[in-house]
Amino acid sequence: MTVIVDAFGGDNAPAAVLQGCAGAHKELGAQILLVGAREAIMHCASEHSISLEGCKILHAPAVLKMEDDPRAAVEGTSVSVGLHALASGEGSAFVSAGSTAGLVLLANGILGCVPGAKRAAIATVIPTMRMPVVLIDSGANLNCTPQILRQFAMMGAAYARQVLGIQMPRAGLLNIGAEPNKGDALHRETYALLSANPQSTFEFIGNVEAREVPVGCCDVLVADGFSGNIFLKTYEGVAMALLESLEQSGRMNTPVTIKQTLKKLRVHMDYSQYGGAPLLGFGKVVIKAHGISNALAIRNAIRQAIACAAVDVAGSIKEAMSIL
Amino acid sequence: MTVIVDAFGGDNAPAAVLQGCAGAHKELGAQILLVGAREAIMHCASEHSISLEGCKILHAPAVLKMEDDPRAAVEGTSVSVGLHALASGEGSAFVSAGSTAGLVLLANGILGCVPGAKRAAIATVIPTMRMPVVLIDSGANLNCTPQILRQFAMMGAAYARQVLGIQMPRAGLLNIGAEPNKGDALHRETYALLSANPQSTFEFIGNVEAREVPVGCCDVLVADGFSGNIFLKTYEGVAMALLESLEQSGRMNTPVTIKQTLKKLRVHMDYSQYGGAPLLGFGKVVIKAHGISNALAIRNAIRQAIACAAVDVAGSIKEAMSIL
Repeated sequence: MTVIVDAFGGDNAPAAVLQGCAGAHKELGAQILLVGAREAIMHCASEHSISLEGCKILHAPAVLKMEDDPRAAVEGTSVSVGLHALASGEGSAFVSAGSTAGLVLLANGILGCVPGAKRAAIATVIPTMRMPVVLIDSGANLNCTPQILRQFAMMGAAYARQVLGIQMPRAGLLNIGAEPNKGDALHRETYALLSANPQSTFEFIGNVEAREVPVGCCDVLVADGFSGNIFLKTYEGVAMALLESLEQSGRMNTPVTIKQTLKKLRVHMDYSQYGGAPLLGFGKVVIKAHGISNALAIRNAIRQAIACAAVDVAGSIKEAMSIL
Repeated sequence: MTVIVDAFGGDNAPAAVLQGCAGAHKELGAQILLVGAREAIMHCASEHSISLEGCKILHAPAVLKMEDDPRAAVEGTSVSVGLHALASGEGSAFVSAGSTAGLVLLANGILGCVPGAKRAAIATVIPTMRMPVVLIDSGANLNCTPQILRQFAMMGAAYARQVLGIQMPRAGLLNIGAEPNKGDALHRETYALLSANPQSTFEFIGNVEAREVPVGCCDVLVADGFSGNIFLKTYEGVAMALLESLEQSGRMNTPVTIKQTLKKLRVHMDYSQYGGAPLLGFGKVVIKAHGISNALAIRNAIRQAIACAAVDVAGSIKEAMSIL
């Protein structure tokens, strides 16, 4: 299987990306189509002694920077060239650690949503004290409607079933209170819509308050992109800060049991371990890796891309949208 | 100083409220005006052997329930009777652990905002690894404008200066990215407004991503009520879940240093220790205690009410709004 990778996405590109690709080829046997400025890629690989075995280069002269207005994104960037390659079947999935907004915008233009889908969304698998939960949307769509959020629930449920193996996922709506009348108009209307139209593909368990999530209250957490992103970053930030503080304070005489627990929690909370976040709603597999991805995170994002392509997540989403 | 307390607010009312009031009187010498159904208060005090020394009862026949539509809130509830008592000077502050929406709505109607203020907001003091941060708004206003968020920054800064002793607070805007163009229209316009109009009372440090907050990146965190509430509940939920998990896993052989750290963190994250959240923007001190308040949380909310009244927080807010 060939995975197309944006060599110039993320804070640590291209070195971390090339290292991640090398690791993915070695460990997973993945064929990589590296997209970016050929000279710069060759130079970086040579400078850091990174083997490009199993990697082909697809030249793209430009880079889409974080500070660029994504609406002005031009052709020729590593993201647009990579997405065109995905569209024309040169690989089974595309991975980028670059600007989320730019990736979503370009994927919308180049791949387009599957028939019936109003918007694509970012799904992020979040560890909890029990089972992981699929957060959708974690940042692609800042302005949503109840109909869009309902589609996110369906897409998240398809992902939970296909990738996490949960036959009848429990979906909750991220809101500021449990009662049906809580939240703004968008959330009250979404609650009503999801309650009035029982789905055959997931169980709607109602509003979910953010503090219930860490103890594992649902399988799919439906959110508009703004509050979903606030939720995700708070979740990550608090966990990492607490773990670091505990590790520092107890470095000298921490017993093995606590050390193991800390390590387990850190792995659970560590973005680099669970890879990237799939963009759901396109007809192809697109994985957004964390902007601060290191080589390990890139390797795991490629692993996730392969897993999604293997079970045909994009096909399941297409099917889910077709029954609307 | 007399503090007016809603005897029927919160999940554990009235017993936890009465116990908290008894503790506040004993420890702080506070005079309490307990508002609620007289017979039920007397019965509860007698049933749980709670001393009502230092407490007077102000009869209110009705209770505003969590599931009530606050827009339909009627007179005669413990919240409305208590707020009327506050307005007519029968006490220096009002404390309630009842419905936030109901409290805000009734306070708006009975007390009204200070001149110039468009909306009142809930400020919550959140512990971080360094200094605490004042989150404003943490849930009162789901629909905001840039002008409203600018006022929240000013009110939060006044609170940080008056109560936390920070002369020139650093205020950040809770957003989904650091760059000025990140977020929806509300957040982009608020960024522009706060950048274009430097304040003499606080320093605007720009957008703040949720994951930076636990390490203490600003003194005042400005948010619309929806995303502020999502942030707050995620923050609480992750911290408590992690601490519980660590405590359980290491209960048997945790060394003293780790135990102390855990205890310190738990105290830092525990709502019951840092009391309630002040509603800023009214001419009087109104404290919203956590809905799941136990007796200790009520006592600390009363302590906070006394502290706010002592330094005349409401007067500072009035002054801050008058210079607009």
